[in-house]
Amino acid sequence: MKRLQSFLAAACICAAASAQAPSALNLEGREFPRINRDNSVTFVFDAPQATSVTISCGKDYPMTKDKDGRWTVTTEPMVEGFHYYSVKVGGLSFADPATYTFYGTGRDCSALEVPENAKDAAYYTPSRDVPQGAVRSVKFKSDVCGQYRRMFVYTPAGYEQDSGRRYPVLYLQHGGGEDETGWVFQGHMDVILDKLIASGEAEPMIVVMNSGYARHPGSSDSFDAFEEMITDEVIPFVDKRYRTMADREHRAVAGLSWGAKQAYDLAFGHPEYFSYVSGFSGIIVIGEFNRSNPGFKDPEKLRSAYNGIFSDPDKFNDSFNLVYLTVGEKEGDHIGDMHRILLDAGISNGYYCSPDTAHEWLTWRRSLREFVTRIFKQK
Amino acid sequence: MKRLQSFLAAACICAAASAQAPSALNLEGREFPRINRDNSVTFVFDAPQATSVTISCGKDYPMTKDKDGRWTVTTEPMVEGFHYYSVKVGGLSFADPATYTFYGTGRDCSALEVPENAKDAAYYTPSRDVPQGAVRSVKFKSDVCGQYRRMFVYTPAGYEQDSGRRYPVLYLQHGGGEDETGWVFQGHMDVILDKLIASGEAEPMIVVMNSGYARHPGSSDSFDAFEEMITDEVIPFVDKRYRTMADREHRAVAGLSWGAKQAYDLAFGHPEYFSYVSGFSGIIVIGEFNRSNPGFKDPEKLRSAYNGIFSDPDKFNDSFNLVYLTVGEKEGDHIGDMHRILLDAGISNGYYCSPDTAHEWLTWRRSLREFVTRIFKQK
Repeated sequence: MKRLQSFLAAACICAAASAQAPSALNLEGREFPRINRDNSVTFVFDAPQATSVTISCGKDYPMTKDKDGRWTVTTEPMVEGFHYYSVKVGGLSFADPATYTFYGTGRDCSALEVPENAKDAAYYTPSRDVPQGAVRSVKFKSDVCGQYRRMFVYTPAGYEQDSGRRYPVLYLQHGGGEDETGWVFQGHMDVILDKLIASGEAEPMIVVMNSGYARHPGSSDSFDAFEEMITDEVIPFVDKRYRTMADREHRAVAGLSWGAKQAYDLAFGHPEYFSYVSGFSGIIVIGEFNRSNPGFKDPEKLRSAYNGIFSDPDKFNDSFNLVYLTVGEKEGDHIGDMHRILLDAGISNGYYCSPDTAHEWLTWRRSLREFVTRIFKQK
Repeated sequence: MKRLQSFLAAACICAAASAQAPSALNLEGREFPRINRDNSVTFVFDAPQATSVTISCGKDYPMTKDKDGRWTVTTEPMVEGFHYYSVKVGGLSFADPATYTFYGTGRDCSALEVPENAKDAAYYTPSRDVPQGAVRSVKFKSDVCGQYRRMFVYTPAGYEQDSGRRYPVLYLQHGGGEDETGWVFQGHMDVILDKLIASGEAEPMIVVMNSGYARHPGSSDSFDAFEEMITDEVIPFVDKRYRTMADREHRAVAGLSWGAKQAYDLAFGHPEYFSYVSGFSGIIVIGEFNRSNPGFKDPEKLRSAYNGIFSDPDKFNDSFNLVYLTVGEKEGDHIGDMHRILLDAGISNGYYCSPDTAHEWLTWRRSLREFVTRIFKQK
């Protein structure tokens, strides 16, 4: 029986003639999912007992069972990018046991990278002879949140050896449903920084990544302690522990999606800490969050936001070294709108639109690349 | 309907009156699994469409569906310790979407820690005012394996600040089906080291963790490049990158289960690199692996193993600072047998048996604690 199954598996692989290769995020030796040449993805599960199996990846793809109990489905061609997905069986939604998981969508989740080799993948793919930094996992006690927490700290190549040098610091946030692991495991931020620093395009810097989920003890608001934790605990901890340049001229903050909102809140709410800020695929939220009518479109609301920081554009522009907004081309016009509205209000800001990509990690890896090449430049 | 479901959920929680608390390894806000006072575990899934759901944790526990489509099961009381488990639905085996996952059993897997608060948990639980080290994730290119690989490197508190000091190094390996993340996420090695170093029970040391799965390009043997990778690539890399004491007097190797076998192979096969070695829950494998008749029980085989290193006990004992064997009390007598056989052969070795624990992480956390307090002592 085992032998027969192996044979059927082999036959099945041959049948999927357009299948290019197992997904790079699969566990070693797992043949499926496979990314096909047209950017569709083929899934196969051996589950004779199951009565329905569905792949949920942007939309639901019900699988089909053959007479041997093997379930298969091939998706439509997918948009280029990094996509979380789930396997639904019997009404329950699981990570695919054939893959490594990534913390996203509020849990450890399977993912696909489409296409297998994106045309511009070199900048986030490790390669030989680039001096490599390291990412530290650091535990700390937060009194603000009343819990032990973990942060990730990237130090650039040479940090370990060159013990006198001090470095500027970028605080970098993930999006909703993700955590402090996102920029390392999904974003490859270490590879991106290593390469840009090696080529001289980015200054050597320290990067600090925390979970944006930070609440006061007993609070029902998942985020209400975030700013206080960063300004009162994380920044002092980092400036004490690492060889930082501990002033706002050498401190930046960026985040993606909900983390973009948090980056704006930190920079514009606490300008004494930061002089560079970037939001990747995220808007300035003024008042209650409302996607269709964000507050920044109302000039009066914009002027009064963040203690009136936008009401004196000259002072603002003099104070901030860079405000930088990014978006994926397939996400829509809302970030481009915000870029122009801020310009109209006299607020200088840069803008980057990632070609062909959506609200996902290809956009954000590129956004990181663009932002870090523009900050901390020697004057 | 939503409200009704919430009510049923509340009723269900009340019914499970003996339930102590959600598992500490659950995602935030997830009520199940719950660890009960008698060390049984209760699982609940809301899956009206499923036709069978089974929890697989050491043994299979088929769940029962009530009229509202809610599946429940309470296990037998479990042995104290860290247990991997899966959810089987429709013949497929998944991680529980309610929990964080850990790389074990060859994939990202759910786990339980029983009881919720082990009586001796303090030594691996973070606490205030203990100076904390950090764990670095470091990428490197292995020519031996023909791939980019990741290692984890623990540096003790003070390493960042005290830039002149050099440290001894422990190379620490996981078990079969796990990887370089095991000692950090399942083992809490950073907390254990932080506390023992703070109390003066252990010397400050660097700890290096690699995946034991290391094959030559194209090889079908998952482990055949491991020793060469460690001796020819990892050790030189670590000695160059970090402030190590780069000689065998200041180098130790330890591993658990299959990693114990790899630790013995490194120490006894390459004694020029290591003067301390410990195997946690693992035997010396001589020739083909055979659990029922391991080669070390045959005096002739033992004498000829590893180029005859055990054939001159005086020389061996003079050369190795410590050989240390550990096991969980519930694992059986095989490690105790090996301890005595080695003593009978004139090979000095220490032995630790962890009370009440099995072949799992409580045994290995304790083993690490015992081993690191015995190495690198100032003479």
